[in-house]
Amino acid sequence: MARPRTAFFVSDRTGITAEMLGHSLLTQFDGVRFNEVTVPFVDTLEKAREVVAKINQQGAADGERPIVISTLARTEIAQAVGEADALFLDCFEIFISPLERELGVRASHAIGRSHSVADFVNYHHRIESVNYTLSHDDGVSNRDLPEADVILIGVSRCGKTPTCLYLSMQYGIRAANYPLIPEDFSSTRLPAQLRPLRGKLYGLTINPERLQQIRNERRPGSQYATLANCEFEVREAEALMRQEGIPFLDATSKSVEELATTILQQAKLVRRIY
Amino acid sequence: MARPRTAFFVSDRTGITAEMLGHSLLTQFDGVRFNEVTVPFVDTLEKAREVVAKINQQGAADGERPIVISTLARTEIAQAVGEADALFLDCFEIFISPLERELGVRASHAIGRSHSVADFVNYHHRIESVNYTLSHDDGVSNRDLPEADVILIGVSRCGKTPTCLYLSMQYGIRAANYPLIPEDFSSTRLPAQLRPLRGKLYGLTINPERLQQIRNERRPGSQYATLANCEFEVREAEALMRQEGIPFLDATSKSVEELATTILQQAKLVRRIY
Repeated sequence: MARPRTAFFVSDRTGITAEMLGHSLLTQFDGVRFNEVTVPFVDTLEKAREVVAKINQQGAADGERPIVISTLARTEIAQAVGEADALFLDCFEIFISPLERELGVRASHAIGRSHSVADFVNYHHRIESVNYTLSHDDGVSNRDLPEADVILIGVSRCGKTPTCLYLSMQYGIRAANYPLIPEDFSSTRLPAQLRPLRGKLYGLTINPERLQQIRNERRPGSQYATLANCEFEVREAEALMRQEGIPFLDATSKSVEELATTILQQAKLVRRIY
Repeated sequence: MARPRTAFFVSDRTGITAEMLGHSLLTQFDGVRFNEVTVPFVDTLEKAREVVAKINQQGAADGERPIVISTLARTEIAQAVGEADALFLDCFEIFISPLERELGVRASHAIGRSHSVADFVNYHHRIESVNYTLSHDDGVSNRDLPEADVILIGVSRCGKTPTCLYLSMQYGIRAANYPLIPEDFSSTRLPAQLRPLRGKLYGLTINPERLQQIRNERRPGSQYATLANCEFEVREAEALMRQEGIPFLDATSKSVEELATTILQQAKLVRRIY
């Protein structure tokens, strides 16, 4: 197998954007192994020179020049990092010029714009929605349930909690979740407190074998984790959601991001964070 | 004020990468107002044509052609979207060619690579770390505290919970948090159960005025939310952290992403999600 190539994701802020873009670009190259290194907060020329040294050192160790994917707002910092012996792809440099021409405005090239002005508003919405989601996780409290933007329902361990957290962290959505438990299936009706909130319900389901695996890690050897029980619960939960006309998604092979984004779109939720 | 321009973030997946990159590019243009529209899951030619219609319609309404920033792996879909009357900036198209030349390998141009192979491993780590973080939020349980990768300490409402959640969701870090309460200050020592875990502690602090504001939203008019009490708690908490040699960050003007990324880097935590 070929030696791995090193990719650096360099940013003057958190590096999350460079890392997400870079990672998805690199996964397009089958058969190449990559070491991925994120270097955040490169916001001075001194730090830029340190990164250059690190990149060059890595290139010497690898025997191949590294790949650098960056988001660097300030031109002089981008230029300094660009002096490394590497393939240098800077998202700002590449995109800012066509945007300047299109808009007829010069870019500010200032660091950290995306978090400055709207920061307090976003922070407030995020804290508020995360608090809401945490206090309405797993049916813990049903107080204020009508204030939810969306209420995820589904059997225990089908992925409701991380999806709710992603909706609240990323989009500022107040996402509650309510587990469907075996007692709910006997009546073949929605739990009483959910009935008036039908318009806010969105379901998750999961492949029973996958559910068994997840539950077994949590409570090994329990009745709760048997395949027969998982099959029963999933079948009943799906039947209930179908009967009640509640839209639902299969979480088995979807990431938390995909589930959250799909629900945002399909349930036409209004995000509070940009 | 000039009319707003519309920017579309178009993706064959969740659109989160295009949206983050696009948003940070647009914030570089002071004085231009933007309507930002994310269009995820554009993974067929039919959907591409629908997006083109939507973009052209918006351009006609705005009287200015929209800006399109996209991450589209499949060439034919990117080309179809590129037919819209817009400034079209596709991250894949721009970056894939130089990467192909550098690596000597053709890109697969397949959709959704970044979530396929490593998905189950990432999912497992994420669920596990989110569960850990939720069950160790706000000192709820101190069982398994030694299994934490990091334990955030600080006064109530200084931002520990969202930072822990971001660390677990984004990086798969088991992040516990432990509130410092007035009783902890009288002894001027760390709470007993934290003492053996000193190497895992990381502090957050906050400006007392900002803390007052946050607490007042939560419990209006309470003693807990008075400025005098906030000043006292912050001063004591900082003194304790300094005395014990615990590193800490000021959360007042930092986003949750910045706090999490800084702690990841400074505490040299090993992420489990890529």
